[in-house]
Amino acid sequence: MNKISKAVIARLPRYYRYLDELRQQKIERISSKELSELMNVTASQIRQDLNNFGGFGQQGYGYNVQYLYDEIGKLLGLGIRHKMVIVGAGNLGQAIANYGNFKNRGFEITALFDKNPELIGKKTAGGEIKDISEIYSYVKENDIEIVALTLPKGPAKEIGEKLVECGVKAFWNFAHTDLKFSSDVIVENVHLSESLMKLTYRISEKNQKSKQ
Amino acid sequence: MNKISKAVIARLPRYYRYLDELRQQKIERISSKELSELMNVTASQIRQDLNNFGGFGQQGYGYNVQYLYDEIGKLLGLGIRHKMVIVGAGNLGQAIANYGNFKNRGFEITALFDKNPELIGKKTAGGEIKDISEIYSYVKENDIEIVALTLPKGPAKEIGEKLVECGVKAFWNFAHTDLKFSSDVIVENVHLSESLMKLTYRISEKNQKSKQ
Repeated sequence: MNKISKAVIARLPRYYRYLDELRQQKIERISSKELSELMNVTASQIRQDLNNFGGFGQQGYGYNVQYLYDEIGKLLGLGIRHKMVIVGAGNLGQAIANYGNFKNRGFEITALFDKNPELIGKKTAGGEIKDISEIYSYVKENDIEIVALTLPKGPAKEIGEKLVECGVKAFWNFAHTDLKFSSDVIVENVHLSESLMKLTYRISEKNQKSKQ
Repeated sequence: MNKISKAVIARLPRYYRYLDELRQQKIERISSKELSELMNVTASQIRQDLNNFGGFGQQGYGYNVQYLYDEIGKLLGLGIRHKMVIVGAGNLGQAIANYGNFKNRGFEITALFDKNPELIGKKTAGGEIKDISEIYSYVKENDIEIVALTLPKGPAKEIGEKLVECGVKAFWNFAHTDLKFSSDVIVENVHLSESLMKLTYRISEKNQKSKQ
């Protein structure tokens, strides 16, 4: 696979979501034009994006929805099982543990970890909440591939570093800081407050316009 | 204000977060080169981005951290109070309600709404959880500017449409669908599972490389 730009990769999950909706509506084929209207992007962007991976479409026939859905799913690594644990079993950690769609897409959440004694022992859809001190042996013994960090930034950095020493190679980070580890460790940082700020930017912009 | 590209706007909250960290470390000035190393972007991108808003820096002197932080905060609409309610008081809704940083940044969460009788009446840091049937009169009487939607996509669309009729102009949407209303309604869609798919894309890409 050639090196694909970050912008293209960032758009793949959105294609995947729209194709899933089409599939559920029993739609079998879709042209890049129809898909572009639905997704509010240009047809040429869709064709360019998918051409990075060899195309998937047939000139004049559009895309086979199920096929394109499956192929993008494979590109996104969703065909195989990913074992994941969650560090920080507060509301956000539990929200992720209880989100059923992850399981359908190959994510198997096997445990949550927290330091709060009131939470330890509680059962969730993502398994039992365990004592944080047990995580290091747990990830080694259970071949955990992904660790979701849903805890404050201070402990996130420290616990993340120890987990890297234990062999964890991928983090889904919700702590309010960009975590960086050695170059072979993959980190996907999610900053919820940043999307809220984009919203207020657009509110300010609109308010300024209406004053003009 | 000229029309600023979406990509620039999307980067502003990240500048804001880094400047906040520098400020807390009592750093008064920073060059675009130093900031670029810290943020892992090019210095020229930083200068270009900030030039959209008139610059903020002085050739050879770099940026005044506190000043730039304040100015970006203003651009992001953080100088003024934003009244917000949350629809869907499950784990995700409660996680947002309990996130203290929003309050510091001018977001005032005044109530949560849910249909689940077991949740109604419960107190959170974002106010009491109320019956969903009360939301329409509530948003009108309390001048609610932003509604966060933390519920499944089916009810999100329906409740969102009714809220638009009640005058709500901005949604922070976590439901698993891109919500669209009339053109004067601002929607910021957050798709948590998409960031997880970007992570698994990068895992697959790495695994393929290591096989080559």
